[in-house]
Amino acid sequence: MRFFVFLISVLFVSSLRAEDGSRLWLRMEQNVKAAEVRVERGTKRTPTIDIAARELENYWKGGCRLSLRVSPDGAARDGFTLRRSGDVVEMSSASDRGVLYAAYTLLRMQQVGDSLREGQVVAETPAYDLRILNHWDNPNGTVERGYAGRSIWKWDELPAKVSPRYEAYARANASVGINGAVLNNVNAKPGMLSSDMLRKVAAIADVLRPYGIRTFLSVNFASPKALGGLSTADPLDADVQKWWADKVAEIYKLVPDFGGFLVKANSEGEPGPQDYGRSHVDGANMLADVLAPHGGLVMWRAFVYQASSPDRACQAYEEFMPLDGQFKDNVIIQVKNGPVDFQPREPFSPLFGAMRHTQVMPEFQVTQEYLGQSIHTVFLATMWKDVLSAETYQDGGLTVGEATLRRTTPKSVTAMAGVSNIGDSENWTGSDMAQANWYAFGRLCWDPEVSAARLADEFLKQTFSADERFVGPMRQVLLRSWEAAVHYMMPYGLHHIFAGNHHYGPEPWYHPGGNIRLDWLPEYYHRADSVGLGFDRTKKGSNGVAQYHEPLATLLGDLRTCPEEYLLWFHHVPWTYVMRNGLTLWDNLCYTYNRGVDEARHFAAVWNEMRPYVDGERFARQKARFDRQAKDAVWWRDACLLYFRQFSGMPLPADCPAPQHRLDDLMKYRLNIDNYTAADMEKLP
Amino acid sequence: MRFFVFLISVLFVSSLRAEDGSRLWLRMEQNVKAAEVRVERGTKRTPTIDIAARELENYWKGGCRLSLRVSPDGAARDGFTLRRSGDVVEMSSASDRGVLYAAYTLLRMQQVGDSLREGQVVAETPAYDLRILNHWDNPNGTVERGYAGRSIWKWDELPAKVSPRYEAYARANASVGINGAVLNNVNAKPGMLSSDMLRKVAAIADVLRPYGIRTFLSVNFASPKALGGLSTADPLDADVQKWWADKVAEIYKLVPDFGGFLVKANSEGEPGPQDYGRSHVDGANMLADVLAPHGGLVMWRAFVYQASSPDRACQAYEEFMPLDGQFKDNVIIQVKNGPVDFQPREPFSPLFGAMRHTQVMPEFQVTQEYLGQSIHTVFLATMWKDVLSAETYQDGGLTVGEATLRRTTPKSVTAMAGVSNIGDSENWTGSDMAQANWYAFGRLCWDPEVSAARLADEFLKQTFSADERFVGPMRQVLLRSWEAAVHYMMPYGLHHIFAGNHHYGPEPWYHPGGNIRLDWLPEYYHRADSVGLGFDRTKKGSNGVAQYHEPLATLLGDLRTCPEEYLLWFHHVPWTYVMRNGLTLWDNLCYTYNRGVDEARHFAAVWNEMRPYVDGERFARQKARFDRQAKDAVWWRDACLLYFRQFSGMPLPADCPAPQHRLDDLMKYRLNIDNYTAADMEKLP
Repeated sequence: MRFFVFLISVLFVSSLRAEDGSRLWLRMEQNVKAAEVRVERGTKRTPTIDIAARELENYWKGGCRLSLRVSPDGAARDGFTLRRSGDVVEMSSASDRGVLYAAYTLLRMQQVGDSLREGQVVAETPAYDLRILNHWDNPNGTVERGYAGRSIWKWDELPAKVSPRYEAYARANASVGINGAVLNNVNAKPGMLSSDMLRKVAAIADVLRPYGIRTFLSVNFASPKALGGLSTADPLDADVQKWWADKVAEIYKLVPDFGGFLVKANSEGEPGPQDYGRSHVDGANMLADVLAPHGGLVMWRAFVYQASSPDRACQAYEEFMPLDGQFKDNVIIQVKNGPVDFQPREPFSPLFGAMRHTQVMPEFQVTQEYLGQSIHTVFLATMWKDVLSAETYQDGGLTVGEATLRRTTPKSVTAMAGVSNIGDSENWTGSDMAQANWYAFGRLCWDPEVSAARLADEFLKQTFSADERFVGPMRQVLLRSWEAAVHYMMPYGLHHIFAGNHHYGPEPWYHPGGNIRLDWLPEYYHRADSVGLGFDRTKKGSNGVAQYHEPLATLLGDLRTCPEEYLLWFHHVPWTYVMRNGLTLWDNLCYTYNRGVDEARHFAAVWNEMRPYVDGERFARQKARFDRQAKDAVWWRDACLLYFRQFSGMPLPADCPAPQHRLDDLMKYRLNIDNYTAADMEKLP
Repeated sequence: MRFFVFLISVLFVSSLRAEDGSRLWLRMEQNVKAAEVRVERGTKRTPTIDIAARELENYWKGGCRLSLRVSPDGAARDGFTLRRSGDVVEMSSASDRGVLYAAYTLLRMQQVGDSLREGQVVAETPAYDLRILNHWDNPNGTVERGYAGRSIWKWDELPAKVSPRYEAYARANASVGINGAVLNNVNAKPGMLSSDMLRKVAAIADVLRPYGIRTFLSVNFASPKALGGLSTADPLDADVQKWWADKVAEIYKLVPDFGGFLVKANSEGEPGPQDYGRSHVDGANMLADVLAPHGGLVMWRAFVYQASSPDRACQAYEEFMPLDGQFKDNVIIQVKNGPVDFQPREPFSPLFGAMRHTQVMPEFQVTQEYLGQSIHTVFLATMWKDVLSAETYQDGGLTVGEATLRRTTPKSVTAMAGVSNIGDSENWTGSDMAQANWYAFGRLCWDPEVSAARLADEFLKQTFSADERFVGPMRQVLLRSWEAAVHYMMPYGLHHIFAGNHHYGPEPWYHPGGNIRLDWLPEYYHRADSVGLGFDRTKKGSNGVAQYHEPLATLLGDLRTCPEEYLLWFHHVPWTYVMRNGLTLWDNLCYTYNRGVDEARHFAAVWNEMRPYVDGERFARQKARFDRQAKDAVWWRDACLLYFRQFSGMPLPADCPAPQHRLDDLMKYRLNIDNYTAADMEKLP
């Protein structure tokens, strides 16, 4: 009941406050008289069942008696059945979590206007077992690639003080099916595993648990040394293994349902088994052995790229493919959707189609590190679905989604991870509209088949207004927003031409000098020269195409058949190369950047028409963002076209609008923010 | 000298007249004092050399002495060398035709502003041996799919009266490298081979010959019966063979350099060898045997589609592939660029990549039957180059262009045909801008590598103005015009949803009733139903994809990898199918039709800015066309979206503009023109 006190107080306060966006998509109006809810005989009243019952009592307005039942013959694996029989809506599952998901599903149906007709049955089972947010939150309260204030986890106050935000966070996650959270940054501090910190973790886990959410931690592979005082962190060292075993035992004493570890090892300077001449298998399996008796998982990231590699995009495959089949059952290899790093548009990582004997899970980025952060509206469901539905051609036909849903052993777990966009700002995500990505990520883990249009509808109706005059146009804005961002940032497979470090805005010329890794420079990726543009990953280049199955390898490796959205990803293309529409690469670049500008302006214009349907506070906040997005699109266009023009030596097509900036000015401009800070909209060029 | 009298009189009169467009791209100002031209000793003064000399004397303004030489060690196959040595420009070739092409090349360089520097050598050989226009002109003066008045050939006046237009036509062709003309429609009347008509043909051939142009005729395969009075036209019948031999001998007596026959047989009701149980090989080889002693060719069209075929697009391949290798050396199979019929965008005909032992030539349509006729500006160089550069994957890699340029025997001839857009209207092509397609067709036959942008530049500078304020924007309009037309007419591989018969404007609902062939109905092609849109040519459908080599067969047959520009050509796609940009097929259709409208309006707006650079007459004529094109784009958009919406059951996206027409009105509208008439711009909806 403690949770409910918090919950209700949060909501009550929210309703009195100005519209700060804190209520997310959970804006049901409370009943004056509680709905009739019955927990059926034989169903244990767990905290989770209590939540389900209370949510329905408070918010269900559809009449009928609501019957909640947990029984062994109910749907397994978080699934549930909702059935309306006469005046009764029965909600049953094999678990109390399933009943809770049924409750949130019923309330969502109410809010978006889906009816539950007499005799209708809604039976759902989530596609992925583990639907997990990765928080890149640091113990010092900063959030890497966080654009919504500081971390929601108030480590200084914990465990004594438990913020009501934790429960609101848990509730929001449960309402969209998220059932796991990695609390801390993959660039993990060893101190995160200190006994002191673990007690704080336990306090959070206690809040999350009734909402069906298991707690996970990122771990620093060198923890035995850095924290435990051992002389090594060699995974084959008996003392190291014992240290981990003891530490894991300590964790499970505090957090009995602890989920396991997320590990970034031997990547971007983080320690790992290779420091001791051991492999990813040695490292991951050691942790897996330690966690297995407790039912814990290891999520081992494949985001590796040695500085010496000739093509960063090939590196994860090269390093992990030889290890396929050697990982323990409770290891999942966590693979970013693309071979590089959450770019506006990447082809899928070839590891998805290649690993046959190892469980893989996709890692998506909900936070918009490379997509306008908390300023631009970029609805990511379209991108994620594009990745999941990509055909890998493994074994005669297998999409990325199917590859990640295929269980490699009877015990293996299927999972999808999203890097959270959540912070302590009042509206959680910095931008009110960015809540849509948190929402969509959860819903897609549950059901990757649900359309992006449906997700946009659900989000908009629950969060803003169900008026079709609002939902219709804004659905289209959300659906078009990803492609628009690709157009004004990096069309045709361009990638990583962002400003250094903070990645907000264009900086294709970025080069700080010194011994910086070449693969941290835009020029490494765009390869602009007097001949053309793009990274040659064909046979004549890095041969990255060979990491894909046929016919993809041929298709992608051939300039004439490579899908044009990936043209510059796989090919160094002459400026004068004629594309399928008959225009040169250069002309198409110019028109496409301008198309992106037009689209961003269109979005701002559509939003301007939405004033009647949105409260003044959110309207104003979002208007500032859409206007800024349109300006940023111009900034991107001018920066990229003026910069690349130095290489192409070609004029802008005569029917293109003139640039609004001078290249010199843009190159002098520095946005003084770090990797933990959102840009100040007022100070952008 | 007779020719020159005509020539000069035409030009003189033109320069006094209002700007009627009759001068095409040949607008050099005549010298007051003739340039110094010397025909070198040993070079015979043929009529062709005389023309070359006179053109240079009249129009070359670059100083230097011009030296013309025909010598056996000069470039062969119509090729030439242009060399500037000090004050002399040497122009040499193994043939007088080569010298004439050198002269036109030099004059073109002058007109477009290319310099000929000291020591510079321009050495050119045309890519295709035969660069031929197909006139679909009927003896009664009509032109099938002609939108520029009536036929230029005044059969009634011939042979007594020879119109000066014939020579102006020959000169225009020579100036762009065209060296062949089929004078009459492929739907040929038997009477075309009457002795009376042949004397008229001879009179035309006499005018064309000095300009290096050989004359060809389309023949009706039943001529021995219909004209000769035989009881059969069976190609294996001795009397038939004799009839043809006699007829051919008669032709060659009149036209010693006669080129040969173009044959449309067993296609759309035309007679052919199959009427007698014989094959295309029997028919073509019989004519080839008859023509061979005279050096004549047979161009045998592969445009066949039996009414009973389950997929019209597969028919040409099915009928011709079994015959590969059986045709005589002097037979060329003439293949339309796509498998259906000159649609706004088609994949290439699989015959190009498939026939290994038979000479094939592409047939392009210069006249804009399906592309807005003489109203819309659609620059076709981009489309033709797209086809020629398409990879067929035959023998490890061969483009369509390479396939048609590969000689199958030492004697075989390479060729490219274009269906002419020429009529007797003053500006030749109905639209002043459509002259660009005649121009570009010739230039591309000569050099398929020259870019569409270069061709647009050349045309605009020579025809309208060399002012970069004109050329810059209008080059871009021309280059973008094809894709724009695809957008507002038939995006994503839609095809043949034109108005019945005349093919101007949209009529996806066209169904006149009665026993019409199913494959003459739009619904045969678009296959709209409640599920989706498009023609299934995958394995589950007609398996048309199997006519392409791997990896194309797999690539095209897989919804996820099929290039989206051909999506509905190869797949029946659900309306809700999510395309690569994250939008459904339906939403993308809506946005793309609107994009086409925006582009057409943009073209009209650009043209409006061109008033300072263009004479008033042509400005006004073209303005009316651009304005009408923009209106037609709206017509297309409304017709297609409103019609298909009946099947999709989905609303237009809320941020799309509302239709300007009602479907009922559009469906009632009939444009009362036939297949020989241009639409009246004033009477369109």
